[in-house]
Amino acid sequence: MQNQSTFENLNPVRVDALDEILGKPFKILDDGFIRVIDYMGDDSAIVQAARVSYGKGTKKVREDRTLIRYLLRHRHTSPFEMCELKLHIRIPMDCWRQWIRHRTASVNEYSTRYSMAIDAAQTTTPDEWRLQAETNRQGSEGLMDSTQGNTLSKEELELQSFARSIYTKRIELGVAREQARKDLPLSTYTEAYWKIDLHNLLHFLELRMERHAQLEIRKYASVIGQEIVKRWCPLTWEAFQDYWLNAVSFSPMEQQLLQLLSSEDLQKTLDKVKELGWLKTNEDGSLKLHFERLEFEQKLEHMGLQIPWQD
Amino acid sequence: MQNQSTFENLNPVRVDALDEILGKPFKILDDGFIRVIDYMGDDSAIVQAARVSYGKGTKKVREDRTLIRYLLRHRHTSPFEMCELKLHIRIPMDCWRQWIRHRTASVNEYSTRYSMAIDAAQTTTPDEWRLQAETNRQGSEGLMDSTQGNTLSKEELELQSFARSIYTKRIELGVAREQARKDLPLSTYTEAYWKIDLHNLLHFLELRMERHAQLEIRKYASVIGQEIVKRWCPLTWEAFQDYWLNAVSFSPMEQQLLQLLSSEDLQKTLDKVKELGWLKTNEDGSLKLHFERLEFEQKLEHMGLQIPWQD
Amino acid sequence: MQNQSTFENLNPVRVDALDEILGKPFKILDDGFIRVIDYMGDDSAIVQAARVSYGKGTKKVREDRTLIRYLLRHRHTSPFEMCELKLHIRIPMDCWRQWIRHRTASVNEYSTRYSMAIDAAQTTTPDEWRLQAETNRQGSEGLMDSTQGNTLSKEELELQSFARSIYTKRIELGVAREQARKDLPLSTYTEAYWKIDLHNLLHFLELRMERHAQLEIRKYASVIGQEIVKRWCPLTWEAFQDYWLNAVSFSPMEQQLLQLLSSEDLQKTLDKVKELGWLKTNEDGSLKLHFERLEFEQKLEHMGLQIPWQD
Amino acid sequence: MQNQSTFENLNPVRVDALDEILGKPFKILDDGFIRVIDYMGDDSAIVQAARVSYGKGTKKVREDRTLIRYLLRHRHTSPFEMCELKLHIRIPMDCWRQWIRHRTASVNEYSTRYSMAIDAAQTTTPDEWRLQAETNRQGSEGLMDSTQGNTLSKEELELQSFARSIYTKRIELGVAREQARKDLPLSTYTEAYWKIDLHNLLHFLELRMERHAQLEIRKYASVIGQEIVKRWCPLTWEAFQDYWLNAVSFSPMEQQLLQLLSSEDLQKTLDKVKELGWLKTNEDGSLKLHFERLEFEQKLEHMGLQIPWQD
Repeated sequence: MQNQSTFENLNPVRVDALDEILGKPFKILDDGFIRVIDYMGDDSAIVQAARVSYGKGTKKVREDRTLIRYLLRHRHTSPFEMCELKLHIRIPMDCWRQWIRHRTASVNEYSTRYSMAIDAAQTTTPDEWRLQAETNRQGSEGLMDSTQGNTLSKEELELQSFARSIYTKRIELGVAREQARKDLPLSTYTEAYWKIDLHNLLHFLELRMERHAQLEIRKYASVIGQEIVKRWCPLTWEAFQDYWLNAVSFSPMEQQLLQLLSSEDLQKTLDKVKELGWLKTNEDGSLKLHFERLEFEQKLEHMGLQIPWQD
Repeated sequence: MQNQSTFENLNPVRVDALDEILGKPFKILDDGFIRVIDYMGDDSAIVQAARVSYGKGTKKVREDRTLIRYLLRHRHTSPFEMCELKLHIRIPMDCWRQWIRHRTASVNEYSTRYSMAIDAAQTTTPDEWRLQAETNRQGSEGLMDSTQGNTLSKEELELQSFARSIYTKRIELGVAREQARKDLPLSTYTEAYWKIDLHNLLHFLELRMERHAQLEIRKYASVIGQEIVKRWCPLTWEAFQDYWLNAVSFSPMEQQLLQLLSSEDLQKTLDKVKELGWLKTNEDGSLKLHFERLEFEQKLEHMGLQIPWQD
Repeated sequence: MQNQSTFENLNPVRVDALDEILGKPFKILDDGFIRVIDYMGDDSAIVQAARVSYGKGTKKVREDRTLIRYLLRHRHTSPFEMCELKLHIRIPMDCWRQWIRHRTASVNEYSTRYSMAIDAAQTTTPDEWRLQAETNRQGSEGLMDSTQGNTLSKEELELQSFARSIYTKRIELGVAREQARKDLPLSTYTEAYWKIDLHNLLHFLELRMERHAQLEIRKYASVIGQEIVKRWCPLTWEAFQDYWLNAVSFSPMEQQLLQLLSSEDLQKTLDKVKELGWLKTNEDGSLKLHFERLEFEQKLEHMGLQIPWQD
Repeated sequence: MQNQSTFENLNPVRVDALDEILGKPFKILDDGFIRVIDYMGDDSAIVQAARVSYGKGTKKVREDRTLIRYLLRHRHTSPFEMCELKLHIRIPMDCWRQWIRHRTASVNEYSTRYSMAIDAAQTTTPDEWRLQAETNRQGSEGLMDSTQGNTLSKEELELQSFARSIYTKRIELGVAREQARKDLPLSTYTEAYWKIDLHNLLHFLELRMERHAQLEIRKYASVIGQEIVKRWCPLTWEAFQDYWLNAVSFSPMEQQLLQLLSSEDLQKTLDKVKELGWLKTNEDGSLKLHFERLEFEQKLEHMGLQIPWQD
């Protein structure tokens, strides 16, 4: 513990790479954006807070990068809460409905009770219409052909402009804004100030940069990660990618299979997989859909390892 | 502290008046509802938890009602967190956007990525269209005449059915559900399980039963208060109305004015109000809009007291 | 809504009055302190966030001070979450046990698993020993005489030094730090980084600057309020004192009594108070202790109004 | 979506295996305990909430166990928040200081401002004194010999009884309870009601059942897991052990190494490990301490795989 009389004056933490883009909008979708309004702390502030916990005993023992990597690897997340980020976001309400489910942030959203709804709705170009995924009930996969896309985009505009004309008419007739807005399309843009600490932001990014997240919110999340966090806390960003975003986790059953795989005893491996009930077949002999097996196969493929029950 | 060997078996807390309505929907708006799915605790659980804090020293000293009233009056809210309520809610998305801003609850919402959007949108009868309020930028006041109301209701249906037809067509063409939904009107119904503790529920009710809350969400909040909390925790409900919902608060300036008013020295009172800058006039001699004066006037009226600067 | 191309570069918000004391410790108790490590936002950031909600419609209509006062008066607290404060605190563990009950903050505490416990415990001078309050079971009132105080202070040191010697001996013998610390006195100092947004900080101050809060934590809270928040967000600090800290709240029953008092009809007032059950007497004719009556009496006194049932 | 008229009456969810132990204390340490006071929900309530999200589309498609395992594996944690548990805990303050750092729970703790401090402190038998770990700065490893243990245990009692006598004397002299308690040892027992949802409880168990958690809190966490959650939500408990508690995670670097290991190309593997900087040596040729290498070695060992840079 430092002697009190030795405390030096502090200067607020500033990060040049982030100060350079302060207030500048990154464009997202056809009319959305994200811009940094303010921030507090940086990589060094994380280290500083962690060292309060560890006390003088560990000072200088580990350098900053090693410490940050250690903290993230072991999910010692409290020091990352010492950094804070404030963004200004313009986003379709549909996408915002997903965003706002993250409860550990502070929010001030544009109010359509107080003011006229923003006169912009997210539009889709003919080549952006996505097809429903087959195996993943909540996802999309592949694109519509452009002829159908053309029709869909035309009808989208038609609907949006009809909805806007009804809204405008209601307002002109004197209907209360809080009620006039009720039939605006979910694609209508809204804006918000959104403030969150770095720990909770990483959690947001882990969920929303993931490939199963909906494309639209993934675009916002990627900008936050790659354009903002990377500039703001580069050591944290690197460690986050290594230990959170791109890490792969194995259950005890999968650990056993990995061991058997490495022992090269194919039969024992297959026996174990059968024992787990992962290789049940349909009447035509094909393997039944089994999510846990499927996920293990994806992990093996991702790591360049062979799947013994496939040819 | 009780001797461990003396702990008796516990029975789970059940409230007959609430068990009677478990699962039964209270209808709200044209197609919404709230129903109680489950709950934990009751008035006695609040008392039980408070007495852990107070220790044996205070046991039996105050009876339950007095203790609950004391706790709520002094905003000692932690014992109220020992009660938990789980609701099933059907509600227009527009209204849900306000609801979800309360962050201290657990939520599972119907997902229109997984399943088809619910085929129902909130409709407005011709006599329900509200006019924009003049002084309160975010409120409504009075109703449209029914001729205009008729037109508005007809157009509302037209828009909703056009939006639904576009949605259905997209789905039929194979557009991913997560994208097809993007132009649904905000009036589309959604459903959710919503779980919250009694402390945070009272805070929700305080804000959403208040007369400035939007009519739609106020209807939901009133049902939760008057049909559910009242049955579940009647002592808490009574105290909540007395000390939170219907209490009036006075700033030091207002306290001074109340004293002057009671002293019946009209001149001194007016001098003080002027000194506060509350009586500035427009060129025509009328009083300028001053929110703090306005609110004080409302409080005096509410309490049946005279406003000395009005005739 | 602003056109995107018009966004100007932003500069981070800095507050000179706070930058001047950045890192400087305010001493509290015999060996504690608070110092500001960093902050984000100021009064203007609150206004900025509120105006996102209100949209351009209300821009410039109200000036900053009026808006901040309006927001705090009506507990529209979300814009205050846009400001963040990070403190370094040195505090006895006993006091920290109360502090940490505020859950909406981020914390990194000095770890006595990693490092030797801080070699300092809070001591009491002979004239600082407080007597147990009679009516308020959780409070103190008045002071011990100095002779007894002398003995108590001597014994306090004796106990603290014995505890420390045992701790040191355990460590020297090789006992794990995590176990060696188990019998340290609660008066042992700890340190922490503590980060919280302004909304939740005001809530903390409302509870901990209040006269029923324990003296020790009240001293910390007062320094945060009067030395830090006052420099950081002077408009908010002023409004907080007026509408939160020094406001007085009246239940419907109390409102009725105020009206009766102003009507000067003494009999009706007394009838009403009796009807409320506030004037029950002991066998000797004295008034029974009744908390709600007592609190109303205190409010009347505070406002300089007469209590009709007292001579 | 179900037709409203078809809603059947609900019965509250009860779990026989948990009802049987309701209120019964599980003893922990020398004088601590945990007992279940109440609960809401069970495995079926998790499934019920998840199916609100998924809509009718997926009803009956997956059975409960598969769904719960899927949810936990993918950290879709919101349905687990639909279950709630209320415990009564008796625990040394030292251990409680760690416990209370979990912010997402509701707490009512025994107040030593209101009542006399509990007259019990945690004691250590001569064979329970643990040695400081060498590599892990925050851990313990091995035990003191019993002769030294004897002395330590005797001194522990001496200190505790001296501290208690001082406390009692202060109280007898009239010192306020809030001040008299200031030098009680951290080993003093406290009690609390603690209420938390199952999602956050699993997070608590993940951190506190882990082998690096301090022994004392680990004992409490194990009882919650193995005696309570296992009875309450057996499917969740099983999945938690497989996918959270006993899962192993690999960074991209480790994934590459696993692939190289399986390719049996020893040289390439060693080259890669060197490239990562994991094999730096001290002057005497021994490997330098490198936490990431160490952790990878532990994972390989745990999985029964060979470490190629060890003989």
